[in-house]
Amino acid sequence: MSAPGAFGGVELRSYIREIPDFPKEGVGFKDITPVLSSPEALQASVSALADYAREVGAEVIIGAEARGFLLGPAIALGAGCGFVLARKPGKLPYTTVRAEYLLEYGTDALELHSDAVAHGARVLVHDDLLATGGTAKALCDLVEQLGGTVAGCGFLIELEFLEGRAKLEGFDVRALLGYEAG
Amino acid sequence: MSAPGAFGGVELRSYIREIPDFPKEGVGFKDITPVLSSPEALQASVSALADYAREVGAEVIIGAEARGFLLGPAIALGAGCGFVLARKPGKLPYTTVRAEYLLEYGTDALELHSDAVAHGARVLVHDDLLATGGTAKALCDLVEQLGGTVAGCGFLIELEFLEGRAKLEGFDVRALLGYEAG
Repeated sequence: MSAPGAFGGVELRSYIREIPDFPKEGVGFKDITPVLSSPEALQASVSALADYAREVGAEVIIGAEARGFLLGPAIALGAGCGFVLARKPGKLPYTTVRAEYLLEYGTDALELHSDAVAHGARVLVHDDLLATGGTAKALCDLVEQLGGTVAGCGFLIELEFLEGRAKLEGFDVRALLGYEAG
Repeated sequence: MSAPGAFGGVELRSYIREIPDFPKEGVGFKDITPVLSSPEALQASVSALADYAREVGAEVIIGAEARGFLLGPAIALGAGCGFVLARKPGKLPYTTVRAEYLLEYGTDALELHSDAVAHGARVLVHDDLLATGGTAKALCDLVEQLGGTVAGCGFLIELEFLEGRAKLEGFDVRALLGYEAG
């Protein structure tokens, strides 16, 4: 099931630009840059995800570089929360915790400052896109390593055919726009 | 001269965490993660930079990955603007323009979608930190390649001793917090 596409009177789906064969042949890339460059679509996206953050009682939003940084802090502002950053290894300057995740070939990792999430804090995991779920699951792991609770996982887009939700079983998941096929 | 440190009643400077010897010995890293994780400091930073965007008549905000993504879209929302993304080569899916800039050793480049800035649009260049000015100057170049006008350059932090403003001569520059020494 696809999520509805209208938020605050804005037909968000019409702002997603489909780029065929990027980054490789056969893949239809969902380009979100038109959402960001439109004041109305940006506001509608952030408001809908901030509503979700409030609905699940989030106190903190977490997002990973680079694309999780685009809407994460704006969602945090909209919901009266703070934003915490997960980065690639070696980028964060203070002491960190780490979570690894599988890529198509090999593994990658994300790090989070060890004081970024207070014990018991309710955290919303955010990314622009839910694909196979590896990044989102790593963010959930980081939150739980620090004793936080994953209040929910909120995305702008879900590529439903990649079944990333299966990796997030047990967590509440919300995507504004779902795509049933590539 | 350092900029004052209080914005909307929030002493922003107290939220900057100094990390000695990162990323290498002798460098004092300005860690902005406590600004982002505090709802009050995040709001104060974004409001002050959105005020600057309105003051210079910006219609669009531009920022580069990854750290320019953190506040850029929130500033855009606060000022009623859209946000456009500059990324490292090969990351943006549509047709792009490119600007190169010097690193300590070698060069790097940023790309921008060729339809991201309308001819004549007034654009605010944003990054979290003004250091040597290479990234900000590359952003100015990208804006001008597409026929836009750089309305101003707005930063959270300026490392004044690195003299990045010299690279931005002719542009209006505002930093919320200035540091006179490393």
